[in-house]
Amino acid sequence: MAVTSKNLFRVVTEPCPVTSNKVTVVGTGQVGMATIFSLLAQGVSNDICMIDMVEDKLQGELMDLQHGSLFLNNPKITASKEFKTTAGSKLCIVTAGVRQKEGESRLKLVQRNADVFKNIIPNLVQYSPNTILMIVSNPCDILTYVAWKLSGLPENRVLGSGTNLDSSRFRFLISKKLGTSTSSVHGWIIGEHGDSSVPVWSGVNVAGVRLKDISPKLGTDDDPECWKVIHRDVVQSAYEIIKLKGFTNWAIGLSAAALANTILTNQHNVHAVSVLVKGMHNLDQEVFLSLPAVLGSNGVEKVVLQKLASNERCALKFTAAMLEEIQGGIKI
Amino acid sequence: MAVTSKNLFRVVTEPCPVTSNKVTVVGTGQVGMATIFSLLAQGVSNDICMIDMVEDKLQGELMDLQHGSLFLNNPKITASKEFKTTAGSKLCIVTAGVRQKEGESRLKLVQRNADVFKNIIPNLVQYSPNTILMIVSNPCDILTYVAWKLSGLPENRVLGSGTNLDSSRFRFLISKKLGTSTSSVHGWIIGEHGDSSVPVWSGVNVAGVRLKDISPKLGTDDDPECWKVIHRDVVQSAYEIIKLKGFTNWAIGLSAAALANTILTNQHNVHAVSVLVKGMHNLDQEVFLSLPAVLGSNGVEKVVLQKLASNERCALKFTAAMLEEIQGGIKI
Amino acid sequence: MAVTSKNLFRVVTEPCPVTSNKVTVVGTGQVGMATIFSLLAQGVSNDICMIDMVEDKLQGELMDLQHGSLFLNNPKITASKEFKTTAGSKLCIVTAGVRQKEGESRLKLVQRNADVFKNIIPNLVQYSPNTILMIVSNPCDILTYVAWKLSGLPENRVLGSGTNLDSSRFRFLISKKLGTSTSSVHGWIIGEHGDSSVPVWSGVNVAGVRLKDISPKLGTDDDPECWKVIHRDVVQSAYEIIKLKGFTNWAIGLSAAALANTILTNQHNVHAVSVLVKGMHNLDQEVFLSLPAVLGSNGVEKVVLQKLASNERCALKFTAAMLEEIQGGIKI
Amino acid sequence: MAVTSKNLFRVVTEPCPVTSNKVTVVGTGQVGMATIFSLLAQGVSNDICMIDMVEDKLQGELMDLQHGSLFLNNPKITASKEFKTTAGSKLCIVTAGVRQKEGESRLKLVQRNADVFKNIIPNLVQYSPNTILMIVSNPCDILTYVAWKLSGLPENRVLGSGTNLDSSRFRFLISKKLGTSTSSVHGWIIGEHGDSSVPVWSGVNVAGVRLKDISPKLGTDDDPECWKVIHRDVVQSAYEIIKLKGFTNWAIGLSAAALANTILTNQHNVHAVSVLVKGMHNLDQEVFLSLPAVLGSNGVEKVVLQKLASNERCALKFTAAMLEEIQGGIKI
Repeated sequence: MAVTSKNLFRVVTEPCPVTSNKVTVVGTGQVGMATIFSLLAQGVSNDICMIDMVEDKLQGELMDLQHGSLFLNNPKITASKEFKTTAGSKLCIVTAGVRQKEGESRLKLVQRNADVFKNIIPNLVQYSPNTILMIVSNPCDILTYVAWKLSGLPENRVLGSGTNLDSSRFRFLISKKLGTSTSSVHGWIIGEHGDSSVPVWSGVNVAGVRLKDISPKLGTDDDPECWKVIHRDVVQSAYEIIKLKGFTNWAIGLSAAALANTILTNQHNVHAVSVLVKGMHNLDQEVFLSLPAVLGSNGVEKVVLQKLASNERCALKFTAAMLEEIQGGIKI
Repeated sequence: MAVTSKNLFRVVTEPCPVTSNKVTVVGTGQVGMATIFSLLAQGVSNDICMIDMVEDKLQGELMDLQHGSLFLNNPKITASKEFKTTAGSKLCIVTAGVRQKEGESRLKLVQRNADVFKNIIPNLVQYSPNTILMIVSNPCDILTYVAWKLSGLPENRVLGSGTNLDSSRFRFLISKKLGTSTSSVHGWIIGEHGDSSVPVWSGVNVAGVRLKDISPKLGTDDDPECWKVIHRDVVQSAYEIIKLKGFTNWAIGLSAAALANTILTNQHNVHAVSVLVKGMHNLDQEVFLSLPAVLGSNGVEKVVLQKLASNERCALKFTAAMLEEIQGGIKI
Repeated sequence: MAVTSKNLFRVVTEPCPVTSNKVTVVGTGQVGMATIFSLLAQGVSNDICMIDMVEDKLQGELMDLQHGSLFLNNPKITASKEFKTTAGSKLCIVTAGVRQKEGESRLKLVQRNADVFKNIIPNLVQYSPNTILMIVSNPCDILTYVAWKLSGLPENRVLGSGTNLDSSRFRFLISKKLGTSTSSVHGWIIGEHGDSSVPVWSGVNVAGVRLKDISPKLGTDDDPECWKVIHRDVVQSAYEIIKLKGFTNWAIGLSAAALANTILTNQHNVHAVSVLVKGMHNLDQEVFLSLPAVLGSNGVEKVVLQKLASNERCALKFTAAMLEEIQGGIKI
Repeated sequence: MAVTSKNLFRVVTEPCPVTSNKVTVVGTGQVGMATIFSLLAQGVSNDICMIDMVEDKLQGELMDLQHGSLFLNNPKITASKEFKTTAGSKLCIVTAGVRQKEGESRLKLVQRNADVFKNIIPNLVQYSPNTILMIVSNPCDILTYVAWKLSGLPENRVLGSGTNLDSSRFRFLISKKLGTSTSSVHGWIIGEHGDSSVPVWSGVNVAGVRLKDISPKLGTDDDPECWKVIHRDVVQSAYEIIKLKGFTNWAIGLSAAALANTILTNQHNVHAVSVLVKGMHNLDQEVFLSLPAVLGSNGVEKVVLQKLASNERCALKFTAAMLEEIQGGIKI
């Protein structure tokens, strides 16, 4: 300790090295950084561990965040490519992954990401055996399955950020059409995070008033108001934003931070997240898909059993079968 | 579980019964309730245990707070006269205590409160052996000593809210005179929480500019601007407010919540709190007095060694001797 | 300006005397103070004007709050019995009112409070002609009507806090029974704030799943799970808490602060508040009752037209007639 | 309005089109976006107008932010290349600017940015004549001067984000060395934002204890503890981070959001920002340099007159002369 420090202070005890809100984020690309910044700026956690293999980038991000400490809650931020720095994490959020190459099949992409996960997941579990694992990397649902298998953790401790974001987009677009706030419109998109996601039109409501009770054709092909377009826009969102700005980051970062908040503060809020669906909605595959679930410090506490229309059940069934097939081809 | 609930949910795992931010507040009088409400409304903790012996009052406060859950962070609040409900608290804040009877000597009052603490403190430590103890009850400094003795905890884990409030009042009154924000004025009141507190005029500054460098007589008797009046007003504050509204609650509640925030989130902020002063500023008594200290999840990490003027040192010495004498008369 | 201040600063311009988030709260009893403290502690506004006729109490509360400035957002708080200090308020919240005397008829109580309002309301409107008026005083619905009449403001600028609190209690009690967070349970209580309030069971849902679709008898007399008891408990809440602790304050303060937040930040959130119901749900009386409404900086923007069951419509009709009759007897 | 909407709502009044917390950010590059995201995520404003000339990027960022509405405060976000959408802004933050070309002289760079400002500034002032202008673009101090000249606004309404960031970096690095929180270390860097900035070592303190009183050689060349290195590291920060990750964004975004918060909520906090320094510290040039200043809704209310050492005064004088010379060569 410097002389100045020695003369300034009388030491009583050592600082506590571990806090109870430590969050590790693996991957410091656009999504990882937006997640970390959301966690810090919204006060979800002030104890963040960043893991990445690209050391320059990692150090640059670390310094940049630390220089903002005065405007945050005096966070403790660490960054390393060594997993031992993740020790004691209450929650690990995985955003790492490789991108699809031109002409690459989906299965090949999944396999390459599964290979990346083989390094990440066991390391995270080794250093934080009581952690919750949240998978944000895409394809989210399959990779959540891969993470679950690799981790050896019970199903409640592994979840994918899934359609929490899709549902948020859905609610924003409906709210714009209705002229009310996003948080006062309720609506859920379930299933696969991505193209085959399923909007549950029967549950869309404002103040408990089902829009489908007002307009029975809502969400169907012969709806004169074309509400269905909203789901199409949700599905197209990511592609559209990537076309316009090159990547998506803000909304997915905020979505992950919201899930982290519920988990760290044991709030028992319901979010649409990717969970093991076997045994629900007549699905018998061991696959992960998003359903509304009650989350808390133990992870997934309960899954909400929505009353689905037959076309919604069909869509889930189809997706589950497809995922199972892809999963069958992955070497874990 | 009700049938509706059974049909609504598929249970995956049990909710986590303990969070890592549990705060127990003992005493639900005006100060205790303002502390609890500050903790909840400012998002410092959403896991609160309330302890009091007056069960009706306790249940009424519990219901009233729970009815506000929607506007807070979905808190878990428990209330009981049984200490076992405090188990697993990371921080215990004690606001309980009896009031001075007419004609009662200070020593007798302290003894009566020490007797109250004999029931409270060992119970808290039994159910939360790793807790930090924060004493808010008055006389704060002596009762922090009593709590320390009764707890058997190391000195870093026991502190009094002390002059954190006095310093806040000091900064507000100076800021009003200067026309800037309270948080941009820096100034510290140390020593006893109450009449014999010591304002450290040498440290009062705005943006690092010491007011005493501008006006060397600042805080002295022959200061034409009478800054000394501000310290007198700080000392009179509690008396004045009690005269006007019957009690003080808001500022002391906010002060305790601010200390709790630093401790729960391991922020290492400096606050003026009541700590064991033996060995500092030439004090050799085993008494607790407020000094600026770095706080974190381990409690008191370091104490700032201010450069005190001789009259300031004298005042501390005098107070320490007085407290030691009173403490000598208490049966713990 | 003091010499120290003159030597410390170079003045560039005068501080701005008016902010755009000024909130006046009339009445500094338990409800008024909990409202003010919620506004400050939750960061809804840092510019508060307190109005009361009891000057000692008022000054005591002012000092106590100001001493907490360091732990808030450096608020500007003023307190006065003169209405000119309210000038430029964006929102005025009225919590003032007299209490029921033993044996006093409801009409007499209303008349006495209407007389109090005759002094308050025109003064508020005179000094803040563009304000929104929010009435919290009880009986809330009639007094909102009285305030509307006295103010001369359009209906969108006058609202009562109404059943925003009852709905919050309703959601908490249901959430406790279901084991999820209060904010993930959706349910609305409409109509009169108080005994004749109406729970809209058809809208109660979790993640868009109507509980009534699971348990069709929900809320009825022959429901084996007795959900109806929850509404009874909501209605009894205030009485129960008053019996236990003497008054209610926290939840109503938080409820008012939540409404204020939506209004000040123009969020267009839906809240159950007391609005002019004439022309809705077949009601033709010029009375105020709570219905879910979209609120923003212009006050009440839209009212949600819920699909009510016949017994719910009847209950509203009955209440509206009763209120109209009482209103007919008031001298405004 | 869609039929569903018409049947769902009864319209009472139009939503309020303008809020009182509207902030325009010009430039949606890395700095602009980090500023906007900080404003939204920290709840500083929920009414943001984004201006940029690159429409694709702008629309992509808009969509991405809007999709996060559910996790923010239901913000209103607009994006356009037309300045009329900025109308009614309370604060305009300019982050736009061109980058230095290889071999380009500093003067030429400044001139090119001044040319960019000729389009931006008069447009901002035309549509929001009562706005505060905050310049973040680099070189910050000269461009603040340019903006002031182009705007025709009084000096209090134009400021540069200046060394608010440098001071934050300074405090973080000192805090790391001392083992306390960044917000408990006080220290100010003044002068030019960048290479010739001036650390005011005399003001560096913890709890009012000047580090220079403990270690008189602090910050000098012959200080055995080499504290001077910390200022060097602050100056090198931006270069280092750019080398590591390609740009800086988080800390500067948070810094701008912190200034915005003080201004929008009229807090009168002291921040180091770029202000017209003529007449202070014996400077007679019409240049902008950072000094600690009290900010509020009227912009720069007061400047703190620090007691500077002769070498500090010299450094300021030198920088002021240099800036004046550059300014003399710009065509505004």
